[in-house]
Amino acid sequence: MKNPILVPELRELLKKKKFAILKSFLEESHPKEIAEYLGMMRAEEIWRLLNQVDIYLRSDIFQYIDIDVQVEMVSGSMKKNVAELLTEMPPDDRADLFQHLQKNVADRLLLYLPIPERTDIIKLTSYREETAGAIMTTDCATLNENLTVEEAIRKIRKEAPSKETIYYIYVISDEEKLIGFVSLQKLILSRPRQKIGKIMKKEVIYAYTDDDQENTAQMIEEYDLIALPIVDRSERLAGIVTYDDAIDIIRDEETEDLEKLMAISGGVEEKSYLEVPAFVHFKKRAFWVIILAFFGLLTGLIVEAFQETLQALIILTFYIPLLNAAGGNTGSQSATVVLRSLTLNELDPGDLLKVLKKEFLISLGLSICLGLITFGRVYFFPGAGIPEAFTLMNVSLVIGISLTLQVLWSTIFGALIPLLATRLKVDPAVVSSPLLTTFVDMGGIVIYFTMAKLILGI
Amino acid sequence: MKNPILVPELRELLKKKKFAILKSFLEESHPKEIAEYLGMMRAEEIWRLLNQVDIYLRSDIFQYIDIDVQVEMVSGSMKKNVAELLTEMPPDDRADLFQHLQKNVADRLLLYLPIPERTDIIKLTSYREETAGAIMTTDCATLNENLTVEEAIRKIRKEAPSKETIYYIYVISDEEKLIGFVSLQKLILSRPRQKIGKIMKKEVIYAYTDDDQENTAQMIEEYDLIALPIVDRSERLAGIVTYDDAIDIIRDEETEDLEKLMAISGGVEEKSYLEVPAFVHFKKRAFWVIILAFFGLLTGLIVEAFQETLQALIILTFYIPLLNAAGGNTGSQSATVVLRSLTLNELDPGDLLKVLKKEFLISLGLSICLGLITFGRVYFFPGAGIPEAFTLMNVSLVIGISLTLQVLWSTIFGALIPLLATRLKVDPAVVSSPLLTTFVDMGGIVIYFTMAKLILGI
Repeated sequence: MKNPILVPELRELLKKKKFAILKSFLEESHPKEIAEYLGMMRAEEIWRLLNQVDIYLRSDIFQYIDIDVQVEMVSGSMKKNVAELLTEMPPDDRADLFQHLQKNVADRLLLYLPIPERTDIIKLTSYREETAGAIMTTDCATLNENLTVEEAIRKIRKEAPSKETIYYIYVISDEEKLIGFVSLQKLILSRPRQKIGKIMKKEVIYAYTDDDQENTAQMIEEYDLIALPIVDRSERLAGIVTYDDAIDIIRDEETEDLEKLMAISGGVEEKSYLEVPAFVHFKKRAFWVIILAFFGLLTGLIVEAFQETLQALIILTFYIPLLNAAGGNTGSQSATVVLRSLTLNELDPGDLLKVLKKEFLISLGLSICLGLITFGRVYFFPGAGIPEAFTLMNVSLVIGISLTLQVLWSTIFGALIPLLATRLKVDPAVVSSPLLTTFVDMGGIVIYFTMAKLILGI
Repeated sequence: MKNPILVPELRELLKKKKFAILKSFLEESHPKEIAEYLGMMRAEEIWRLLNQVDIYLRSDIFQYIDIDVQVEMVSGSMKKNVAELLTEMPPDDRADLFQHLQKNVADRLLLYLPIPERTDIIKLTSYREETAGAIMTTDCATLNENLTVEEAIRKIRKEAPSKETIYYIYVISDEEKLIGFVSLQKLILSRPRQKIGKIMKKEVIYAYTDDDQENTAQMIEEYDLIALPIVDRSERLAGIVTYDDAIDIIRDEETEDLEKLMAISGGVEEKSYLEVPAFVHFKKRAFWVIILAFFGLLTGLIVEAFQETLQALIILTFYIPLLNAAGGNTGSQSATVVLRSLTLNELDPGDLLKVLKKEFLISLGLSICLGLITFGRVYFFPGAGIPEAFTLMNVSLVIGISLTLQVLWSTIFGALIPLLATRLKVDPAVVSSPLLTTFVDMGGIVIYFTMAKLILGI
């Protein structure tokens, strides 16, 4: 959708003061698309373009512009211009922008805003990050239960343009407590003289301001809601989280889980891959890679401890890569499947035994397959041959049985770790696939040389 | 939320024919929660319970019941009872249910349905799986542009109860072509005498019935839509996909990508982890695990080819696990990050060079860190000692440099593969982390022994 060819044309039109053409350009595409073009221009040019259209469209386009460009635009412009735009912006996006401003810019800017907006920003930016309070918007339509449908529609008509969504309207008591809701659909279907209290639904699904944002998103997902009301600890309505925020949270959560699974540390970056500097990528990846390298050296020490066995029977070396790979693959698979199931709320930590039983059956199948293949490979194609001190059968057995045991324990270990983490109230996603693979590698080497000792006596 | 203690109580109430209590129980919780209880009962019991409430609530609860239980209920019940329920169901859920019925049950059931519903089911089940057509619902509100706002509201009031959403209303021409839309919000804010053609938005975002469902979900996500209209190839409105379907698709897509990344084959299961039989899990995991085992044996052959080098300098064996692990970890990280960026549409395949440049910088940092750590380990803690034919410095250099090169090539290879797949129009997620690790392992061994030859002459 991005078409940088248009940017020079826009500049040309600005220079020639063809404002009518610019205005119709801004009005005739989706604000999101316009924002993508504008994001490629300088802050001062964007202001000149935005000033061609009315404040509603201006605010619509502005909220789709990249947050960095927003910060630049807000930090470097006339305060009146900015204040007007900020007053019109959705409260959640506005609070987000304020979080990104430098302290002194934010403080100065606040003074230019009307008191209600100022209070709103201070309140919304005060919630702890990643909570429902921090992502909610305060712009929701509310009604008193004693109004009639007719009065309610009149009230909503008056307030609607400033509300983020009016598809659900919340019914609050005189103490601002959430006592019910009506959908706009229900409202326009009801008889004009009916009382809101009669037509409202009383079983409202809601969350608290300090609830985790992921739980909030999952409630929206589970109950197919357009918006979820958020209340404070005294059950007073504080705001709403809308379905589009839920989608963003789900995406971020998935990215975070995926990165953790690959031992990439730190939170999810707001910017896209190419925008994040190489050094930041490096830092996020290096932490665990370096720790894992030390574990890799430890595995090396275990191999070293058995060097005499290896020297006596060099063929054992050839199967170490397979032993490691098979353990890592099957362990990562079971860990991933169990982790996903936990993320989707399919499992309670109480299902531990059921999961272990299932994984045991699966690993039995996998380990027998891989064990037989490996046994067959060694026994029927012994390659360079076996020293006379050992029989081919025994060597094949050591390698085949080790592989079987390795797959068996890796699969069960992989499934167990995320379940145990959940029991211990640790985020199960901390258990990355590389870390798991490292432990499985170590265990595999020990299994391997123990088998060699038991069967071959070396 | 599931509370199996309630099931016996419900049974008791059914036996004692306490229908009033049952009715109020069904009416006072969210249909989704009710459906969870009912899912634990027998089909015939569920029917008796559902028959206590009106058809609208019955249909609401029914659509949240697990599809397997739905199939059981529909297959084993009186046709009239079922037909009434099916007529009331949302068209997309109904079509989905029909896809799950046995052919003869479905055919017989169709005969009991009114012609419009019958046609609708046949049409919806005819779209190819995973397309917008296959997931859309036909239940959308439409208007003619010549109506006034007043007339439009009257029409919608009449039709609303049967529509999945009336928050967006689509404006269609006499040939049923999609020409615009109005939001319900806009509609109730407009003056009663205005023509729909005057207030509608003409820049509609839409998709085609044969578009991929993932693209459809991404459009809903990108433009923050409640519903996306779907048109056929002659631009006639065929249905809508709603935001809650988009969330489901995003979840499924994430699960699928994650499973592919871990070399788990086959599509996403509809059932939860515990419901899927162990044998199905086994089949999904075994395919790639077995193929990868053969690759692992191949890596073993490469090691075997260098067995004389190993025998001359057994210390080299101790660092093979680290070499493999470091390559696998860094390669999987870069592959995952690039893959995620492609999934989120942050990258064009044309960004290939930019990505490679960034990954080169990152891998330079990672490889130098790991190379130095390993060099230091070998040089300062040589352990068992080095045979007299070689110097400690040279051996340390072989191991340190090999690790550096291994990390360098693994990182870049990991990033390159998903980008190349995209260029070749292959799903980049096919490149699983285990497969990548296997190739990286092979490359690492070759690098290792080449370095040994170059520096130590063995």
